[in-house]
Amino acid sequence: MGIEVERKFLVVTEQWRAGAERTLFRQGYLSTDRERTVRVRLAGDAAWLTIKGVTEGVSRREFEYAVPPADAEILLDELCLRPLIEKYRYRVQHAGLTWEVDEFLGDNAGLIIAEVELDHPDQAIELPSWVGKEVSDDARYFNANLIAHPYCRWR
Amino acid sequence: MGIEVERKFLVVTEQWRAGAERTLFRQGYLSTDRERTVRVRLAGDAAWLTIKGVTEGVSRREFEYAVPPADAEILLDELCLRPLIEKYRYRVQHAGLTWEVDEFLGDNAGLIIAEVELDHPDQAIELPSWVGKEVSDDARYFNANLIAHPYCRWR
Repeated sequence: MGIEVERKFLVVTEQWRAGAERTLFRQGYLSTDRERTVRVRLAGDAAWLTIKGVTEGVSRREFEYAVPPADAEILLDELCLRPLIEKYRYRVQHAGLTWEVDEFLGDNAGLIIAEVELDHPDQAIELPSWVGKEVSDDARYFNANLIAHPYCRWR
Repeated sequence: MGIEVERKFLVVTEQWRAGAERTLFRQGYLSTDRERTVRVRLAGDAAWLTIKGVTEGVSRREFEYAVPPADAEILLDELCLRPLIEKYRYRVQHAGLTWEVDEFLGDNAGLIIAEVELDHPDQAIELPSWVGKEVSDDARYFNANLIAHPYCRWR
């Protein structure tokens, strides 16, 4: 259990790509209620179940449990809400922090978001040149909402 | 992961009570969608997260993971849908099988249900004299539904 502090930005150039390693993520939701999202994520050959509470500012309750990948496959294929979210996640180092860059696939192709996890909400960070607008509080970019309103249907 | 085969009956007399040990269960739901229920259960000082798929006959997909009891308390107190379900669970032996008798509290007080888990749907069982009508397929008795429609409001 922990409190997650995370800031999210749109990615505006390609400068982050060189040398970044990527992992394919398949994820789906058992609940997209914003007060109690339940996510199943399969990343390579590891899998987790993650429960998040409502976002308050840039913080929210987060509980994460490793689960057998074979369970996650059944949960994704048979139980999770449709559509699933598929994306490549890249890890990019910048100014002492690890940024996670998500390049969405499928119905959300074209959307690229960078996230950084912080120790506390007021932590000062140096923004990389390749990020643009901050979208931490913009609910449209929550993964749970990209199921009901995928990026391909935005105007 | 497994397939759960379970039969449920109303309890009609008190003969099962003598000597049966009981444990207080507190449980709540992160999802009550019948295709993907997510339950948090605290039983004494142990806790689990349980995910169930849709019931097909008397079988349904079930995934269960132990979680830290301290996590379960926060999930129950802060994230789960209201009201929570509280009940005493008794374990009762009968004819070589273990029956679980649930005596509900709070808004569901007065309701007592006996469940038995089987190896396969067609398994022959000897019914104890203290059970009445079978309610395996009656959705009103699903724990997830006793939240929205507690027993005290049935007429």
